[in-house]
Amino acid sequence: MAGTIKLESNTKCFGGNQKVFSHLSEELKCEMKFAVYEPPQLAAGPVPVVYWLSGLTCTEQNFITKAGGQQHAAKHGMLVVCPDTSPRGCNIEGEDTDWDFGSGAGFYVDATEEKWKNNYRMYSYVTDELPNLIAANFNVTPGKSSIMGHSMGGHGALVCALKKPGQYLSVSAFAPICHPSACPWGIKAFTGYLGTDKNVWQEYDACSLAKSYSGPPLQILIDQGSADNFYNQKQLLPEDLVSASTDNRNVSVVLHMQEHYDHSYYFIASFVGQHFDHHARYLNA
Amino acid sequence: MAGTIKLESNTKCFGGNQKVFSHLSEELKCEMKFAVYEPPQLAAGPVPVVYWLSGLTCTEQNFITKAGGQQHAAKHGMLVVCPDTSPRGCNIEGEDTDWDFGSGAGFYVDATEEKWKNNYRMYSYVTDELPNLIAANFNVTPGKSSIMGHSMGGHGALVCALKKPGQYLSVSAFAPICHPSACPWGIKAFTGYLGTDKNVWQEYDACSLAKSYSGPPLQILIDQGSADNFYNQKQLLPEDLVSASTDNRNVSVVLHMQEHYDHSYYFIASFVGQHFDHHARYLNA
Repeated sequence: MAGTIKLESNTKCFGGNQKVFSHLSEELKCEMKFAVYEPPQLAAGPVPVVYWLSGLTCTEQNFITKAGGQQHAAKHGMLVVCPDTSPRGCNIEGEDTDWDFGSGAGFYVDATEEKWKNNYRMYSYVTDELPNLIAANFNVTPGKSSIMGHSMGGHGALVCALKKPGQYLSVSAFAPICHPSACPWGIKAFTGYLGTDKNVWQEYDACSLAKSYSGPPLQILIDQGSADNFYNQKQLLPEDLVSASTDNRNVSVVLHMQEHYDHSYYFIASFVGQHFDHHARYLNA
Repeated sequence: MAGTIKLESNTKCFGGNQKVFSHLSEELKCEMKFAVYEPPQLAAGPVPVVYWLSGLTCTEQNFITKAGGQQHAAKHGMLVVCPDTSPRGCNIEGEDTDWDFGSGAGFYVDATEEKWKNNYRMYSYVTDELPNLIAANFNVTPGKSSIMGHSMGGHGALVCALKKPGQYLSVSAFAPICHPSACPWGIKAFTGYLGTDKNVWQEYDACSLAKSYSGPPLQILIDQGSADNFYNQKQLLPEDLVSASTDNRNVSVVLHMQEHYDHSYYFIASFVGQHFDHHARYLNA
């Protein structure tokens, strides 16, 4: 039944509960899993929500097992929702061929290409179906949501926040793909999911969106490791997002370059507390 | 060459470096890996060491990826050393058959049974070869070592501390196997590695060792989840260690029962900061 969620696991963690659920997604037309950390404060009343979007090859498990985020969610009293990174098991020819396209690589877009458009609707899943599911099943504070992510999921977080003004009170990202129209990962994914018209790509490109954004003032927090191979291969291009935002007074980008850090969850764990603090300033204001 | 260590990986984490090394072990007669977290304070001079011993099926990776320990090691300025849990690839018939015996299940004993005694010498590896290797290759403070572990590794930590009075200034454990002579895991492992003489088993049984311990006063910190299946299956028996220590004024056991927590790394992550604080009271005194 649509809207029904099934508890797959429940583990006590930092005084709260780390749960994983499955459900049948209407947008994606497949069974999906997502993780929810319920902070201890949930016992006393509604709490705000932070969404975490993971990167290429990840599932709902990576953040909850490796990032050490629960301690900060418990401190600030935030529900943390971690969806999977793509539809799964859709029996689309080629969906499992590449690690950077198809399964594990939904890129948080609504596909328009024939082959993918029926299932690959991660943008609508993350910004619409999932928030409705969370609101229906958890005691969350209306209007108090933020979003963050890593790499492809950092791109997703930026795009969701910039395309849905006001829906997310704050946004942050670790080593995000900032300019997908101009990097190999993004060009491959956008061509596959959206076709060859580069004008269409701009709807999911944080650099384009940051130029035209006219919603409430948005301060984007980004941490980027200087020893990140993907940064050095120009897959991430955070400087392009800084440039794109310069002339838009509604968007400001705070880019922290972190010396010697790489692209891994060791990097994320090192700074995730600061990202939760960032979101707390908006969600618990 | 004996004593030579090879850097396998190095990742920046919480201002320090999470490294993994390989080396040819003299005790175990095979190549072994171990992880070392170097805290930021190492740049300024020698630091104390904490050893972490993992549980059944684990490698040197589990603690460093899932426990979130680095932040606490960075705060207190401690080197953290995580060995693997058994010899590897020794070509002993049956070594990979069971998940609770052989590979991934060395039980931190020096085997005496013919088949295993040449390689399965994890007790001497952890208490002798590895500390010498650490002292030779890292700027650690002489005489400042502590030890902790989880499940089978909790058993290992208790046994190492109780058998080597003064070598470890403090000891702690998460859900340790406290009475291996009296639980299915321990009986299987001790029979396999040490033979059927139960008097010999007592040399590696924390309950026996705690009765006869006559070294410097040792306060043992234990956290145990009440929803831990293995606790409820009587594999762990922490109450037996509390009883065994009652009449020995040199050993005190502080057992924290943690309601609703299980046996997982979510449990470890929730309380590992308190364990580092415990060790800091002795190492940084």
